[in-house]
Amino acid sequence: MSHIAIGPSVSKSPFYDATVDAGATEYTIYNHMYMPMSYGDPLGEYKTLTTGVSCWDVAAERQVEIVGPDAAALTQYVSARNLGGLRPGRARYAPMCDHDGCLINDPIALCLAEDRWWLSIADSDMTLWVKAIAGAKGFDAEVFEPDVSPLAVQGPKADDVCRTLFGTELIDSIGFFQHRFAELEGIPLVLCRSGWSRQGGFELFLTDGDRGMELWDLVMAAGEPQGIAPGTPHRMERIESGLLSYGSDVDPDTDPIEAGLGPFVNLDTEYEFVGRQALIARQTDPSNRRRLVNIDIDGPMPAPQHSWPASASGKPAGRVRAATWSPKLGHNIGLALLSTDAATPGTPLTVDADDSVLTATVSPVPFGVSL
Amino acid sequence: MSHIAIGPSVSKSPFYDATVDAGATEYTIYNHMYMPMSYGDPLGEYKTLTTGVSCWDVAAERQVEIVGPDAAALTQYVSARNLGGLRPGRARYAPMCDHDGCLINDPIALCLAEDRWWLSIADSDMTLWVKAIAGAKGFDAEVFEPDVSPLAVQGPKADDVCRTLFGTELIDSIGFFQHRFAELEGIPLVLCRSGWSRQGGFELFLTDGDRGMELWDLVMAAGEPQGIAPGTPHRMERIESGLLSYGSDVDPDTDPIEAGLGPFVNLDTEYEFVGRQALIARQTDPSNRRRLVNIDIDGPMPAPQHSWPASASGKPAGRVRAATWSPKLGHNIGLALLSTDAATPGTPLTVDADDSVLTATVSPVPFGVSL
Repeated sequence: MSHIAIGPSVSKSPFYDATVDAGATEYTIYNHMYMPMSYGDPLGEYKTLTTGVSCWDVAAERQVEIVGPDAAALTQYVSARNLGGLRPGRARYAPMCDHDGCLINDPIALCLAEDRWWLSIADSDMTLWVKAIAGAKGFDAEVFEPDVSPLAVQGPKADDVCRTLFGTELIDSIGFFQHRFAELEGIPLVLCRSGWSRQGGFELFLTDGDRGMELWDLVMAAGEPQGIAPGTPHRMERIESGLLSYGSDVDPDTDPIEAGLGPFVNLDTEYEFVGRQALIARQTDPSNRRRLVNIDIDGPMPAPQHSWPASASGKPAGRVRAATWSPKLGHNIGLALLSTDAATPGTPLTVDADDSVLTATVSPVPFGVSL
Repeated sequence: MSHIAIGPSVSKSPFYDATVDAGATEYTIYNHMYMPMSYGDPLGEYKTLTTGVSCWDVAAERQVEIVGPDAAALTQYVSARNLGGLRPGRARYAPMCDHDGCLINDPIALCLAEDRWWLSIADSDMTLWVKAIAGAKGFDAEVFEPDVSPLAVQGPKADDVCRTLFGTELIDSIGFFQHRFAELEGIPLVLCRSGWSRQGGFELFLTDGDRGMELWDLVMAAGEPQGIAPGTPHRMERIESGLLSYGSDVDPDTDPIEAGLGPFVNLDTEYEFVGRQALIARQTDPSNRRRLVNIDIDGPMPAPQHSWPASASGKPAGRVRAATWSPKLGHNIGLALLSTDAATPGTPLTVDADDSVLTATVSPVPFGVSL
C-alpha cells in the first residue's frame, strides 16, 4: 500500500481535518480534492450504513453553478434528460453527453431558482465543459464552481438524526430529490433528500466553507443516540444497489444507454441537447454496442486492482469494471461492461482476474433503478 | 500520513508496476491517473536530478490529440499563444484560457503533422474542453485522448543516456522543444527534448501502452553507467526553476499574465482565441490584479499542507501557494500570488504558516523564463 502525497496542490474539503481526526485510513482524489474512502473497517462501515447511520465527507462532489437569464436553457442544453417541469426545490438525475453521445458525467441537477441551478457532479471537470458550451454558444449565464460542500448523512436512521437537527416537520416535508434552503446554528446550507447510497438520508450542501468543522461536529453530536459513525461512499453497498460510478464503470466512449441509464435520457423530446443527434444515430447501429450489467461471481476472488477481461463461450465479451464481496448476498458480485450478445441474464462468463481465472454469471437484477 | 486508495476507478500508467517495484512511496492522482511523487528520499532524488539523471513516470501528463482538416485552426483557437509558423517536429508552450481570460491549463503544443497536434496537458480535463469548443463551433476535427504516455529522462546526464538508446546523431540533431517519431527495439514513441525540470533531457512519448514495462527497463539499463535512478517531478527543483504548477500555484480566476506567463500569450495578433477579448479587457483594469512571484523565506518553516495567507505592511497581500527548502540557495523559498502593489522585488512579507508566523521577501528573480 502506498502513501498519498498530501500537499497544497490538491484541494482539501472543509471537513478534511475532521476526517483526519476521525481516523480516515484511505483517501482518493476526486474533482481535484481529497476524499476519504475508508476508515479501515469496510464490513463495520457497511453495517453502520445499512442498519444505522453514517456521516460522509463528500465535499469532492463539487457543484457547477449556473446563474442568469439563460441558466435553465443552458442546464437543459447540457443535460441528456428532460428537465422540463423541474421547479425550484426539486432535483433530477441528469446524465451529460459530449457531441458524440458519450457519457461525460452523471450529475444531479438541482433547481434552486428559475435562474439558478446546480449540477452536483461526479469526477470530471464539468465547470469547464459547461463554460465552454456557454461561451461558444453565447448563452447568457455565469458558470462557476461555488463554495458548496456536501456532507452526507446516510442510512436507515438518517432521518432520525436529521429530525434532531432540523425538526420533524421540515424533514418529513422533504420528499426524495427535494431540497430546501436551511440553516443550522447560523450555518447556511441546502438540505436535499439524496445521497450516493440506497439506504436513505440527506445531503447537507454547506454553502460556507469556513464552517465545515462546526457542521461536522453538530451532525456527529446529534447522531450520538443513533450511534452515528464516520463513513464514506461504500463500494459494497453501491455495487449491490446498482449505483453507477462514472469514471470507474465506463470507458470514455460509453453512451448513457450502454451504461444502463436509458431511463434517464430523453431522445423523444423536442428540445435539443448536446449529443442528442449522435445518441439517436448510435441506437440505429446495434453492432458493437455494449451494456453495463450486474454479475454474480463464483467463489473467492483477488482484490481488483485493474478492470478484468471477461469472455463468453470462449470469445472476448468485455470487461469487469468493479467487483466486491456482497455482505447481503454472501458472494462476490460485480459490474461488467459487455457486448450486448453476452449481456443476457444467465450468460456464463470466464473472468481473467490477474493471476486467477474466475467463473461468473450475468445477473437478472436490472442495473439502474428509478432515480 | 494517509494511504491512497488503489483501485480500478483511477487509471494506472503503463509504467505503474515498474514504479511500485522501484519503491515509489507517494503517489498523487493527476488527470485521473496515479502518478508517483516520491521514492522516499527527496534530497537524494534532487541530487540525482541536478547532477546525474533520473527516469520519471509522467504518463499522467496526458495528451489531447486533435486530428483533421481544422486541427491547426482549432489548436490555435484554444491557445492563447501564437502558434503561427509552428511546423511538424516543433513544440511550443501554449497557455489556454476560458472565455473570461482565466488560465485553465498550460500545455505544450506539439505539431506532429499539419493536421495532427497534441496538447500535452497539466491536471484539468482539456480533452473535454477542446471537444466542447470543437463541437459547439463546428470545427472539422477529431478530439480524443490517445494511447500516449510520456516517460521523462531528466538531468545533466540525460543526453548521454539517450545517445546510448537512440544514437548520438539523432539525439544531437534534436533542439529544445523539437521532436521526432522514433522506435526503440520496435517500441513506437515520439522523442521530444522537453520535460518539467530545467536540468535538460527528453520526454519519450510512448505510443503503445502495452509496452511500458519494456521501455522502462530499456531506459534503466541504458542509464546504468550514468547511475540513473527512478525519480519524479521535483518540488524543490521546479520551484527553484520557476516552473508553474497549474492547479497548485494559481486560483481558478487567475489569468496567464498574473501567473507570470505574459511572454507566452499573444494579445497583439490578428487571430482570435478563446479568452482574447476578456484578457485584453482585464489589462485595462489594473485594480485587483495580482502577480505570481518568487519569495525568499527566512528561517525554518513547517511543511506546507495548505496555501498560506501573506500580508505586506499589515495588509492582506495574497497567498503563498507553494514553498520548499532550496538545496541550491540554502534557505526556504516559495511562490506567492500577490496583489501587484505587494509584488515588487524587495517587499517584506509576513506569512501566516499554520501555527507559525514567518517573514519573507519578494525575490528579484523573475518568474517565468524562456520556454
